[in-house]
Amino acid sequence: MERSIGIGLLGAGTVGGALVSRLIGDADAIAAKTGLTFDVRKVGVRDLTRERPFPVTEGLLTDRLTDVIDDPTVELVVELMGGLEPAGDLVLAALDAGKPVVSANKELIAARGPELIAAAERTGVPFLFEAAVGGGIPIIRPLSETLAGEKIDRVLGIVNGTTNFILTRMSEHGTSYIDALSEATELGYAEPDPAADVSGADAAAKAAILASLAFGTWVGFDDVFCEGIEGITALDIAFAADFGYAVKLIAVCERTDAGVSVRVHPAMVPLDHPLASIRGTTNAIFIEGPAIESLLFAGPGAGGGPTATAVLGDMIDAARETLAGAQVAPRIRFSPGELIDFSEVHTEWYMRLLVDDKPGVLAKIATGFGDAGVSIKSVLQEGVDTEASLTIVTHSASERSQREALNSLRAITEVIEVGSVIRVLRGNT
Amino acid sequence: MERSIGIGLLGAGTVGGALVSRLIGDADAIAAKTGLTFDVRKVGVRDLTRERPFPVTEGLLTDRLTDVIDDPTVELVVELMGGLEPAGDLVLAALDAGKPVVSANKELIAARGPELIAAAERTGVPFLFEAAVGGGIPIIRPLSETLAGEKIDRVLGIVNGTTNFILTRMSEHGTSYIDALSEATELGYAEPDPAADVSGADAAAKAAILASLAFGTWVGFDDVFCEGIEGITALDIAFAADFGYAVKLIAVCERTDAGVSVRVHPAMVPLDHPLASIRGTTNAIFIEGPAIESLLFAGPGAGGGPTATAVLGDMIDAARETLAGAQVAPRIRFSPGELIDFSEVHTEWYMRLLVDDKPGVLAKIATGFGDAGVSIKSVLQEGVDTEASLTIVTHSASERSQREALNSLRAITEVIEVGSVIRVLRGNT
Repeated sequence: MERSIGIGLLGAGTVGGALVSRLIGDADAIAAKTGLTFDVRKVGVRDLTRERPFPVTEGLLTDRLTDVIDDPTVELVVELMGGLEPAGDLVLAALDAGKPVVSANKELIAARGPELIAAAERTGVPFLFEAAVGGGIPIIRPLSETLAGEKIDRVLGIVNGTTNFILTRMSEHGTSYIDALSEATELGYAEPDPAADVSGADAAAKAAILASLAFGTWVGFDDVFCEGIEGITALDIAFAADFGYAVKLIAVCERTDAGVSVRVHPAMVPLDHPLASIRGTTNAIFIEGPAIESLLFAGPGAGGGPTATAVLGDMIDAARETLAGAQVAPRIRFSPGELIDFSEVHTEWYMRLLVDDKPGVLAKIATGFGDAGVSIKSVLQEGVDTEASLTIVTHSASERSQREALNSLRAITEVIEVGSVIRVLRGNT
Repeated sequence: MERSIGIGLLGAGTVGGALVSRLIGDADAIAAKTGLTFDVRKVGVRDLTRERPFPVTEGLLTDRLTDVIDDPTVELVVELMGGLEPAGDLVLAALDAGKPVVSANKELIAARGPELIAAAERTGVPFLFEAAVGGGIPIIRPLSETLAGEKIDRVLGIVNGTTNFILTRMSEHGTSYIDALSEATELGYAEPDPAADVSGADAAAKAAILASLAFGTWVGFDDVFCEGIEGITALDIAFAADFGYAVKLIAVCERTDAGVSVRVHPAMVPLDHPLASIRGTTNAIFIEGPAIESLLFAGPGAGGGPTATAVLGDMIDAARETLAGAQVAPRIRFSPGELIDFSEVHTEWYMRLLVDDKPGVLAKIATGFGDAGVSIKSVLQEGVDTEASLTIVTHSASERSQREALNSLRAITEVIEVGSVIRVLRGNT
C-alpha cells in the first residue's frame, strides 16, 4: 500500500537538484522502506532556461513562485531557495494554506522562526528544518525530540565547513589565511562571496537555531554575538598548538542560572576535546547535559547529497504525519527566557603581546588586568632582542572586564603591540 | 495548556528509578518545553519491599504486572524490565489494548521486533525504543527518520560499554583481560554475570536492531554472527598498536549487492578511524551511505541518567502523537531481504603464528593460504631463538576460505602455535 505525495519545490540549485535526482533514482528504495512515493509537481526557479540535473517535463518549472504553493496537487512544499525573501513569505503562505513545509533555510528560521512555527501550529501542519543546521548530520530532530526531556546546559558546534577547512589548512600546512581561503573557493567549499562564512554569520544563524531548540527559549540571529576568523594568523594557530590548543570557529550556546548566551567566535579548543580533531569541511556538534553527560554528532555539514538526505528525512516524516490526518502539535514550545548581554558573559582570554623588555613592564600589565578584575592564569615570556613576547591566558571574567583590561594594556607605553586575542573554550560544565 | 499523560511503568531498577525521579524533579521544565506532564499511575515490580529512589504512594507499586497494563488511567506503558519474558507478553498485551509502548529492551526487540511492530500497527499506536541501543545516544530515531531516505551501506558500532572499557584498560595500561574485567565489575560497569557483555551477545542484539532499521530488512538476534573478547590478550593489543590498529569489539552491519550481513567480533580498527579513539564506556555508532558519506554519533551508552533521557524523549513523542488522536503509520516498513551466510562474508584476517625457524616454513604457510584462495597482504617475521613469530594480515576473502587456510596452517608440523586471529575492519566502502 503506497501513498503518493505531491511535492512543490522552491529552488532547484545544488540541494534541490540532488533532491529531485534522488526522488527519481531511489524511488523504489524509498517506497519499500517508507510506503511513500514523492511526485514532484512544480518546481519554482528564478531562471527557466538554466540546465537542470533532472528531466524537466512540460509545466514542471515555473518562475511564478506562488504557483508552487497554489497548485492544488502540491501537498507538501520544500523550500530550498535560501535567503530571507521571497522565501519567507512563500513559506508563510504555504503554512497558512495548511500545507506542510520542509525547509533548509537557516537564515530564514533564525530570523522568523517563531512566526513560522506559530503559523504551522495554527493550521496544524508540520514545519521541519533538519537540513538547516549541520547538513546531513541529524541534529534538529535529536535536539527537539530525543533530548526534549534533557535540561541541556551547553551546545558547542563546528557548524561552518568552509571556515573549518580554512583553519585546518592553516594548522596542518601553515598556509596563510588568504591562501587557505583561495583554496576553499577553488574547491567550491566557499561561496564566491565568502563573507557570510568567514564573518561567522552563517554559523551564527545555526547557533541561534540550536540554542532555541536546546533551551526552549527563542534566540534570534540578532541575539548572537559573532566574531569571524579574518584576524586569525597561521602564527596564532602554531602558538595555540604549543599551548595544547586547536583554533576553531565555535558556536557556543550556553544556559546558566543567569540566562542564555549564544555566540560564535574563534576559540582555543583543548587538543583532547573531541571538537579539536574535527578536520576539513566536517561539522560536529557537542551537547552537554546533566543526565546525558556529553554527546557528539559529526558528519558532512554541507553539500547536495548530505543535505538532500536530511530534507528527504523531513519529507518522509511530514508525509507520515499528514497522512495520519491529525493536527500534530509542534515538537517544542518556546518560553520567554533571559538572554545574557554579551558584556556579562564570562570567558577566558588568550592573548599575545609584544612589549619592551624592561623591568617593571610585567607589573604594569598585571596591574592593568588586576584593576579590571581579571586574574591571570598563565604567562609565558619569551625574549626577542630588546623586546619580549608575552602569551597570557586569563581566568574566566566578564567580557566587559576583559575588554577593560585589554584597553588598559593598550595605554601602556611599553606595550608595542597587542596581537591576537582569542577566547579559550571552557571545559565541561 | 498542559496535558497530563497517565504512565504505567514496568520495572523500577536503575533506569526506571532514574526516570521516575526525573519525571518528578524536572516536571516543570518538561511541561514548559513540551506542554506535557507525566503522571506515573502504576509501577510493576518483582519485589514490593525493595527501597525505591522515589516517593512510593499508596497503591503505586504492584507485583501483579498485568495490572499496570489494565489500569484504565494508564495511557502509555514504559517497559524497563529487560529480558524476554514476561516483558514480551506484557508489551504485546499493551499494544493490543491500544496503549503506546516505550521500551528499552534490546533483547526483546531483537527477538520479537516484527511481531511487536505489527501489533503496534494493528492498533495504530507508537512503539518506540530509542533507549534499546546506545543508551543516551540518539540513534534509533536518526536511523529510522532522518536517514529513512538514505541507502545506508554500513553501520559500525561500539555498542557495549563494558567490553570497550575492558579493551581500553588493556590497551592503555597493559592490564590483563581478567584484571580489566574485575575492574569493570568493581566499578559497576559489568553485571555480576558479565557473560552477555564479554561474549558479544548484548552487542549482537543491538546490531540486529541497527541493521533492521538501517536496511529495512528485519534481522533477528539469531542471524547475527557473534564472537566475544574473552580470547583477546594485552599482547594482541600491543601488537595491534605496532601495526597501527586498535582492538575494539565492533558491531558490523553491512549491505552489499549479495545481501545483508550482521556480525559482532573483536576487530583491528585503523588508528585514524574515528572508532579507534572511542575510550572507556563510551559508545559510538558510525553510519556510511552514498549521500551522507559518514556520520558519527558518540556518547554514554548506558547508565540510568542517559538511558532515562532517551526513554523520556520517546515518551514525549508517543504522547504527542497519541494526543493528536491519529493512527500514525510505523516509521519503517520491513521488506524481505537476503541475509548472507556468515561463511560467505568477506573479511580480512590478522593472525600471529609461532613457527620453527627453518627454511621452507614460510613457503608451506603461503601454500596453505594460496590453496584456500586467500592472498596475503603482509607478513612480519621476527626471530625468537630457534622459533619465529609471524604476523600475517590477509586480503579480503570469505570466512569459509579463511577458516580453510587456518586449518591447513594447523596441520603444518613446523607451526608450533596459532595465536590470536582477529578480523581487520575494512576501510570506507
